[in-house]
Amino acid sequence: MAVKGQQLYEGKAKKVYATDSPDYYIVEYKDDATAFNGEKRGTIAGKGVINNQMSNRLFALLKDHGVENHFVEQLSERETLVRAVRIVPVEVVVRNLTAGSMAKRLGLEEGLELSRPIVEFYYKQDDLGDPLVTPDHVEVLGWATAAEIAQMQSMALCVNEVLGAYLRARGVLLVDFKLEFGRLKDGTLILADEISPDTCRFWDATTREKLDKDRFRRDLGGVEDAYQEMMRRVSEEES
Amino acid sequence: MAVKGQQLYEGKAKKVYATDSPDYYIVEYKDDATAFNGEKRGTIAGKGVINNQMSNRLFALLKDHGVENHFVEQLSERETLVRAVRIVPVEVVVRNLTAGSMAKRLGLEEGLELSRPIVEFYYKQDDLGDPLVTPDHVEVLGWATAAEIAQMQSMALCVNEVLGAYLRARGVLLVDFKLEFGRLKDGTLILADEISPDTCRFWDATTREKLDKDRFRRDLGGVEDAYQEMMRRVSEEES
Repeated sequence: MAVKGQQLYEGKAKKVYATDSPDYYIVEYKDDATAFNGEKRGTIAGKGVINNQMSNRLFALLKDHGVENHFVEQLSERETLVRAVRIVPVEVVVRNLTAGSMAKRLGLEEGLELSRPIVEFYYKQDDLGDPLVTPDHVEVLGWATAAEIAQMQSMALCVNEVLGAYLRARGVLLVDFKLEFGRLKDGTLILADEISPDTCRFWDATTREKLDKDRFRRDLGGVEDAYQEMMRRVSEEES
Repeated sequence: MAVKGQQLYEGKAKKVYATDSPDYYIVEYKDDATAFNGEKRGTIAGKGVINNQMSNRLFALLKDHGVENHFVEQLSERETLVRAVRIVPVEVVVRNLTAGSMAKRLGLEEGLELSRPIVEFYYKQDDLGDPLVTPDHVEVLGWATAAEIAQMQSMALCVNEVLGAYLRARGVLLVDFKLEFGRLKDGTLILADEISPDTCRFWDATTREKLDKDRFRRDLGGVEDAYQEMMRRVSEEES
């Protein structure tokens, strides 16, 4: 099973390969890091290995809680077998506290607790800077159906519940995160992409120290250490 | 009735005055025009007179169709008595065709017909450039309640139906428009602000010639003529 075929796609942090089955792809995680829509570029040593393992661990956890996703089996340090999907061209963001682009756009300070989690959609289009869109845009412009939008919203909130509780038990505050969804050949929508310090904001629950890609984006130093610390926490038995 | 009191507010296109009653304000329409969040400034001769009359005519039409709004009585060429409201800090935009900022942000050409009207909210905050927000932002950040958001959405779509049909009968395509809502002292939400070529995109239904502030924004010339032509059409009996 799972003979690595031709490369289908190379993104900023991952490559995707065909396999000998049309139902499966192989994902390979890179150490490359980009920020601000590709304006800032660099390498985070060992990132690919950590993001591969962390994503798989969290996808397995989500599967146990009924959140269908693309994870099948880890193949090596950097490679994982996943179900083949066509990615929906919207990024789904869940926010529990203000941070990042939301804080900046709305003139809010970072770290304000929201009275309930907010789900946002962004149109995946690098040359437009991945603009914020509303569910109406997503539906009327044909990127997803109304039913798919509702499903992505409820699955995103479910992911937030499951991950939030898991991380809270390990001393981590889940500030916000980005998800991507994909369609199987029969149209079924499942969770795809990755769940890692590249795609989430993780803060130490006590000190609020950043344990995610913001250390790279904002030149805070200790980038590799933060990724390793998060991997350690995610691997921990409940404390 | 209606003794003009102290000036309460001066905006880009209007001044608002107190009256001898706390329940009423007087609005005075100016000829000043701004665009691109104040970066471009100018004057459109006679605009204040036209916008005052056109808004009042359209607010009266909307009232006849059950859309509660702030219009009470025109006092002079540029002055109107309105009900006193506290403005909700979001702009509500309805779009029937792609144009303006939506087309630009999403990389779409102008003039594409949407399969159904889209309602958008923008946070009224000049120094942030009036950013697009989602209904979730509006509610969770406390700018309006969930019930008010639902009411603004349905009133905005109702305005779209009424104005769209009225203008269609006069050879005008209602491309998009911006509304503002306000709260009376008892909290009742009503439509406020203005409805004019400053706040709507009007295209000739046959030639698609622009009959609105885009002529000023984009230096297309014939700005005053366009405002006069729109006033003539709005005043027309059904053709």
